[in-house]
Amino acid sequence: MKVRIDRIARDIEIINSFTSTPGRGITRFTFSEPYMQARAYLAEELQKIGARVATTPGGNLCGRIEGGMTGLPSVMTGSHIDSVLHGGRFDGVAGVVAALEAARVMAEEKPAHRHPVDVVVFAEEEGSRFGSVMIGSRAWIGKLTSEDLNRLKDQDGVSYAAAMADAGIAPEAASLLRPGMVKAMIELHIEQSLVLESKGLSIGVVEGINGIKQFAVSLTGVSNHAGATPMGLRHDALQGAARVIAAVEEIAVQEPGATTVATVGVLTCEPGQANVIPGKVRFTLDIRDLDSGRIDQAARRIMSVIQKTCQDRGLAFDIQPRSDTPPVRLSKEVVRLIETTAREKGIKTLRMPSGALHDSSILPEVTEVGMIFVPSKAGRSHCPEEETNLEDIGAGAELLLGAVAKLAS
Amino acid sequence: MKVRIDRIARDIEIINSFTSTPGRGITRFTFSEPYMQARAYLAEELQKIGARVATTPGGNLCGRIEGGMTGLPSVMTGSHIDSVLHGGRFDGVAGVVAALEAARVMAEEKPAHRHPVDVVVFAEEEGSRFGSVMIGSRAWIGKLTSEDLNRLKDQDGVSYAAAMADAGIAPEAASLLRPGMVKAMIELHIEQSLVLESKGLSIGVVEGINGIKQFAVSLTGVSNHAGATPMGLRHDALQGAARVIAAVEEIAVQEPGATTVATVGVLTCEPGQANVIPGKVRFTLDIRDLDSGRIDQAARRIMSVIQKTCQDRGLAFDIQPRSDTPPVRLSKEVVRLIETTAREKGIKTLRMPSGALHDSSILPEVTEVGMIFVPSKAGRSHCPEEETNLEDIGAGAELLLGAVAKLAS
Repeated sequence: MKVRIDRIARDIEIINSFTSTPGRGITRFTFSEPYMQARAYLAEELQKIGARVATTPGGNLCGRIEGGMTGLPSVMTGSHIDSVLHGGRFDGVAGVVAALEAARVMAEEKPAHRHPVDVVVFAEEEGSRFGSVMIGSRAWIGKLTSEDLNRLKDQDGVSYAAAMADAGIAPEAASLLRPGMVKAMIELHIEQSLVLESKGLSIGVVEGINGIKQFAVSLTGVSNHAGATPMGLRHDALQGAARVIAAVEEIAVQEPGATTVATVGVLTCEPGQANVIPGKVRFTLDIRDLDSGRIDQAARRIMSVIQKTCQDRGLAFDIQPRSDTPPVRLSKEVVRLIETTAREKGIKTLRMPSGALHDSSILPEVTEVGMIFVPSKAGRSHCPEEETNLEDIGAGAELLLGAVAKLAS
Repeated sequence: MKVRIDRIARDIEIINSFTSTPGRGITRFTFSEPYMQARAYLAEELQKIGARVATTPGGNLCGRIEGGMTGLPSVMTGSHIDSVLHGGRFDGVAGVVAALEAARVMAEEKPAHRHPVDVVVFAEEEGSRFGSVMIGSRAWIGKLTSEDLNRLKDQDGVSYAAAMADAGIAPEAASLLRPGMVKAMIELHIEQSLVLESKGLSIGVVEGINGIKQFAVSLTGVSNHAGATPMGLRHDALQGAARVIAAVEEIAVQEPGATTVATVGVLTCEPGQANVIPGKVRFTLDIRDLDSGRIDQAARRIMSVIQKTCQDRGLAFDIQPRSDTPPVRLSKEVVRLIETTAREKGIKTLRMPSGALHDSSILPEVTEVGMIFVPSKAGRSHCPEEETNLEDIGAGAELLLGAVAKLAS
């Protein structure tokens, strides 16, 4: 059994012909006209290989190829086709076309499989239209109710439920996804970072989704004349912040395993004049790791640097927690199965965390989940320059096929 | 001869009764109604002691007390009464009331003096109304022409020249201030910083006005996902900037004499999102010293840190000079005369640079200039909290009186 790269390339081409911003990247908001055109193409391709196609709660598309036995849980694979504004050609699409091609090969070669195989297109993963991410998968497992789907609105005030109805789709399979209904789920996705490229690898095996803690920090000193205040008499909030920011990097780098990432993405100075010493500096702090203990440890160490720096420099500080998303561990069994399959096919892999959230962060509540990453050129994503080699997507699809076939056997 | 603090207190009270923002600090823009009321009070007080009052080119008020000999150059003292928006009660006013009180005592006690004494109220020192600082003194010495005064406009489009005419004043003494016309000029001013207070001194003797070099710096790295990009693969512009900012302080502190001050007052991150690594950071750099060699040395050392930091971190940089004001050395003779007079009166002094610009930065082109600083509480200035002890102003006025009397003798 082998996937065909030419068919994958054609699928990518056709799906990306549907965009609201031709020539300026891919813009394909959930339930928009280009979205429904791409979705119709996928439904048709799934029907061609004998799949039974249905819309699930939350507006996800699910194409099922039945297995040799009835009543067994399915093996699921898929991703999303909605995009950010002026996004790229591969975020989501790579996983959908890999799943479709894997299903095609299984339909053609008919390996003995008892479990049904589900190819899924999750709706509104990016949150670009309705302002909230992974709506389709969260609604399917019952984490969002129909009231939620009436409440979530786009910029024009159209609700998620109304947009679904306007697009002419209604959940045919009304039942929610419950534990026991799916044996395992595997999502292929582009990495959206530089790790695989920098190591010259085609495949990453995702062992979990990073947890995130965000804080809003402010340091307060004394705003004074930049010309008349000697260095020794200053309480410069930005000078304090500079030491804290340097420590944020040093602490993240020193964490055992070096998987912790910590970022200051926004910083503002008050009063913000070239000739006035900053009296107040506000900045954000974003700490992520697969291990919540390491997040907390890094946070504690950074807080203690803030405290010490402010004490030394006569500054006051304020630290407000802003968000706290716990890490998600993916299935050890599925991770091992993917790795074993890769070894059999002679594909080198790297275990890694996912820094970004995916529908695969939601599904561990109902099934065993694994993810396959393929490289992003220069780590670029969510932009028209987003690029992944067809050969890498091919290798990922080949691995996905092998793993899904084994799980379904 | 002794100045009277009660008269100084009364002058300060009356002048500050004229403000456009009662209860919210002093706002007294040049040639505005409160400005002209304060100016009229000063003209009257000067006339009471027999001074001949005139408006000079540039709209400055000059009250002359004649000396024993005609044709000799005058000894000048004064400051300004225009303020910033919601400013304080002492910036400028302290120097004007000290000059007025010194002239009063000389008029009363009639010490033998051959040289005339000029009490001057310089116009538009702050630049609050016409957007350009020290217009009065620059126009008086011919650095600004009458075309310039027609070109410089306030927010309502009223030119400096028209505002003068509207206020009903025209230069009676049409002649510019030329070398030889003034023997020496001494300005008393509040320090606007913390040095005197921190040393428990009442008097600073200003030996020069700091020169200023300002730069606009930008560091460019790669903007990437804060969750998906491992620390080792980042080119974080803000992490680079943090090292540079820390070095700015360290280099200034290490400069010999420790008179150099260096400040980063504004910093912005792009794209400026909590979950995105800053791809570009822009910041200002302001370096000041009384010695332009030390400014250049600090600038060179900071530039070399920028270069090295960017090389180490794979960042690009751009450095644009923004302004370059050379330092002004005040008169060694006048500085020594003020110090000698202070010693005779048992007043302890500290030689220091002025971090801010004053009319005294302009006048060295035409005469020997000295400045006396009195302490600012907590270094606050340009705000309603600006405060100086009456006793300190009294000590400064006493010293000013002694120095002016000696120079005029």
